[in-house]
Amino acid sequence: MPLKTRRTTVRRLPKRGQYDFETIAAILDAGCLCHLGFVFEDQPYVVPTAYGRKDSTLYVHGSAVSRTLGALAEGIPVCLTVSHLDGLVLARSGFHSSLNYRSVMVLGRATPVADDAKLEALAVISEQILRGRWADVRPVKRKELNATSVLQIPIEEASAKVRTGPPADDEPDYALPIWAGEIPLKLKAGKPIPDPRLPADTPVPAYVKRFGK
Amino acid sequence: MPLKTRRTTVRRLPKRGQYDFETIAAILDAGCLCHLGFVFEDQPYVVPTAYGRKDSTLYVHGSAVSRTLGALAEGIPVCLTVSHLDGLVLARSGFHSSLNYRSVMVLGRATPVADDAKLEALAVISEQILRGRWADVRPVKRKELNATSVLQIPIEEASAKVRTGPPADDEPDYALPIWAGEIPLKLKAGKPIPDPRLPADTPVPAYVKRFGK
Repeated sequence: MPLKTRRTTVRRLPKRGQYDFETIAAILDAGCLCHLGFVFEDQPYVVPTAYGRKDSTLYVHGSAVSRTLGALAEGIPVCLTVSHLDGLVLARSGFHSSLNYRSVMVLGRATPVADDAKLEALAVISEQILRGRWADVRPVKRKELNATSVLQIPIEEASAKVRTGPPADDEPDYALPIWAGEIPLKLKAGKPIPDPRLPADTPVPAYVKRFGK
Repeated sequence: MPLKTRRTTVRRLPKRGQYDFETIAAILDAGCLCHLGFVFEDQPYVVPTAYGRKDSTLYVHGSAVSRTLGALAEGIPVCLTVSHLDGLVLARSGFHSSLNYRSVMVLGRATPVADDAKLEALAVISEQILRGRWADVRPVKRKELNATSVLQIPIEEASAKVRTGPPADDEPDYALPIWAGEIPLKLKAGKPIPDPRLPADTPVPAYVKRFGK
């Protein structure tokens, strides 16, 4: 099934729209925080929450949509959006000033993950946040698993929208003596902060050591 | 009117909810990209878009909700969410692992900004992205203003949700020999990249020079 549908076709600035799975997956894989949209009593809600991708399925904690959990048996329509802000684009006019970004919008129905698949789905979310961590944490307890609901959303109807590069000004504006260009932005990690209660001789795993250098 | 309502009360982990205007405004002012949720044909959409705040009003470009512009005369229900990912929280268990963040959710109706107030609203969005820039860009042309729709959303029903600090583990887990702590994250600017067509002698404004140092 094509990811591009009437609903996911980028209308505004259509040349920024992309619909191939590889582009969409790469943008999803570059993040761990999505904005999940759902409707309750005719009101849209947009909740930031962690997510994970495995193959063509996205997973989120069900608590993110706890308001609507009652309606979940048959699935609820959601929009899961992931955005990376890559820079400010300073054009010579306000009209052409812009942002550089990569974003993905996935439309679909969120349904609960079955009990026997929950642990694996939680591992996917954890590994999306920090690869390698899941093997090190204390094993999940049965009561924790019971207290956690996990939703799955298939990547079946989706689009990516990407802007890169310098401003695109009106031709006559290039002659104006106004600074123009890009200010690149990137989410960067600082030096890891050990828990105040961590014994000083606790080994630091490689997936932590690599941050903040 | 209180910002806290039945709809904006944080249900999951209620101690993370905050409802005072100053906290909400500070989180909004720390960003320039929001995730705007709206409903069209029963499907929620979440679109990343630039925004600006002035006093208790938020502004976004109308093109963000171009799918629903037809329904705009009386306003459409929206949710405008702004999130800052501040860190990864590595607990000793997967269950208590988390993210540090500051987020704001504003519920309300988006209505079009009147023609005679559009220019000022565009200035608010521009200044939110980069303070000082608006005075330097080439003045807005009448046809650009006509081609731009701007929406306003009052900050009347809203909540902030904030998590900071180290993990909160189950007491017995503190004895486990597992590294735990925070990996701080921050959106950082790199060195400004001049437009390839910019004459080399173009003065660099102070609001650009300060980046990437």
